[in-house]
Amino acid sequence: MQRTVFFISDSTGITAETIGNSILAQFEGVQFDKHRLPFTDNAHKAEAAALRIKTKYAQSGQRPIVVNTMADRALCDIVATSGALMLDVFAPFIGPLEDELGAKRSGAVNRSHGMVDFDKYEARINATNYALSHDDGIDVNYAEADLILVGVSRSGKTPTCLYMALHYGVSAANYPLTDEDLEKLELPARLRPYRDRLFGLTIDPQRLAQIREQRRAGSRYATLQQCRWELEQADRLMRQASIPSLNTTHVSIEEIASKIFDRFGIERTMF
Amino acid sequence: MQRTVFFISDSTGITAETIGNSILAQFEGVQFDKHRLPFTDNAHKAEAAALRIKTKYAQSGQRPIVVNTMADRALCDIVATSGALMLDVFAPFIGPLEDELGAKRSGAVNRSHGMVDFDKYEARINATNYALSHDDGIDVNYAEADLILVGVSRSGKTPTCLYMALHYGVSAANYPLTDEDLEKLELPARLRPYRDRLFGLTIDPQRLAQIREQRRAGSRYATLQQCRWELEQADRLMRQASIPSLNTTHVSIEEIASKIFDRFGIERTMF
Repeated sequence: MQRTVFFISDSTGITAETIGNSILAQFEGVQFDKHRLPFTDNAHKAEAAALRIKTKYAQSGQRPIVVNTMADRALCDIVATSGALMLDVFAPFIGPLEDELGAKRSGAVNRSHGMVDFDKYEARINATNYALSHDDGIDVNYAEADLILVGVSRSGKTPTCLYMALHYGVSAANYPLTDEDLEKLELPARLRPYRDRLFGLTIDPQRLAQIREQRRAGSRYATLQQCRWELEQADRLMRQASIPSLNTTHVSIEEIASKIFDRFGIERTMF
Repeated sequence: MQRTVFFISDSTGITAETIGNSILAQFEGVQFDKHRLPFTDNAHKAEAAALRIKTKYAQSGQRPIVVNTMADRALCDIVATSGALMLDVFAPFIGPLEDELGAKRSGAVNRSHGMVDFDKYEARINATNYALSHDDGIDVNYAEADLILVGVSRSGKTPTCLYMALHYGVSAANYPLTDEDLEKLELPARLRPYRDRLFGLTIDPQRLAQIREQRRAGSRYATLQQCRWELEQADRLMRQASIPSLNTTHVSIEEIASKIFDRFGIERTMF
């Protein structure tokens, strides 16, 4: 069974898509064909959207599902003429919140993914630049790092740092353990002052070998033997130095970030 | 007026936080003190969460608000004993969807931000590596790029490329326009074969000078005069080469990405 879903918004559509994906994931037997209709912020665009949805309805014979975050009721009414099942993301929560807060919603276009708080936005871009320039472990000063991810090459450090920076403005550096560190089983001197900010990433050796093989096919670096040795030594080093760690083999960067923030008590909220 | 808000989830809490932020943004007069309670996936953790919320209630005298995406009703009931206003993100949509799809929700822990679809996850990590290695314009082959962002130094290209890669698996490269390009008013030969994948980012000269000043204080690079010249020439070059462009001064990377995808008809959905 396949159903067409439209995420419609007067802004980026990220909220509609995020909650929509979460809800749809709960219906595992159904395939969803997903489309975005962002920046639907006037009657003209709403009519174009309604037409597109209606056309899909006629073609497929199946009623499309619309996950909607438009604030303007008049625009919602236009889209509803398509005959789709309309799921209004905000409607169920506005009434209870208005009662609780004793205030009316503003009804403005949702700019929660816009540049609303300039300082916060700048912090996030600065953190991203920080993550980019503190990525290789060479000639790096960690004094300003909120967190330092430690692990062997290709254990997931870089994408995780970038994610934490981009979304939470967390200045995350990373340090790739070198063969020398792993042979000596010693934390490099540069990291020692920041022991309470270190977090280790590990990964299954088979998966690591696979990732490295994609990068440098046929290299010693990508052999299972080398991966296994590095990971075993890294594991020892982390235990000796009491660095908390996480195996990332089946864990997404979102999950890694949430777990790290949870562990360090970082309450920084998402932008 | 200040209210405490808890985003509670049996998983990362990203969905709860995303929709929560969007709803709360509609109550502009109220300050919200936001906290995350991710991975609340058993009775023990739910009780700890309830206690924390209840304590906050007692301390502040104000009823906390809980934005909840836990799937397990028993856990929701435990958290509800805190006396908070419970906003269940999924509840309002499950009934209508079950009716429409003729299927029951699975009730499993929400893993929409987990590593559910491994191939998609890998595509996203590969795109991030692509963005990182196609960031400086030097020695870069653009043949595999889905998109190439063009603009002067510090116009927002790198964070935008990283965002599009991390979230949508879009292989976004970027090309920083050089003084030579700007003097000649010519697209570099390497970009010409990919004209239909180019998108320009511009920015107000005052803002650009401010960003550059933070980076290289007192440099010629950061003077308003230099910024103005580069941006004027870039604007000319983009018009001559018919490259669509966007001024990023007041626009977040989420908005930039949405607008670019919309323009190029990229329907790739978020991970």
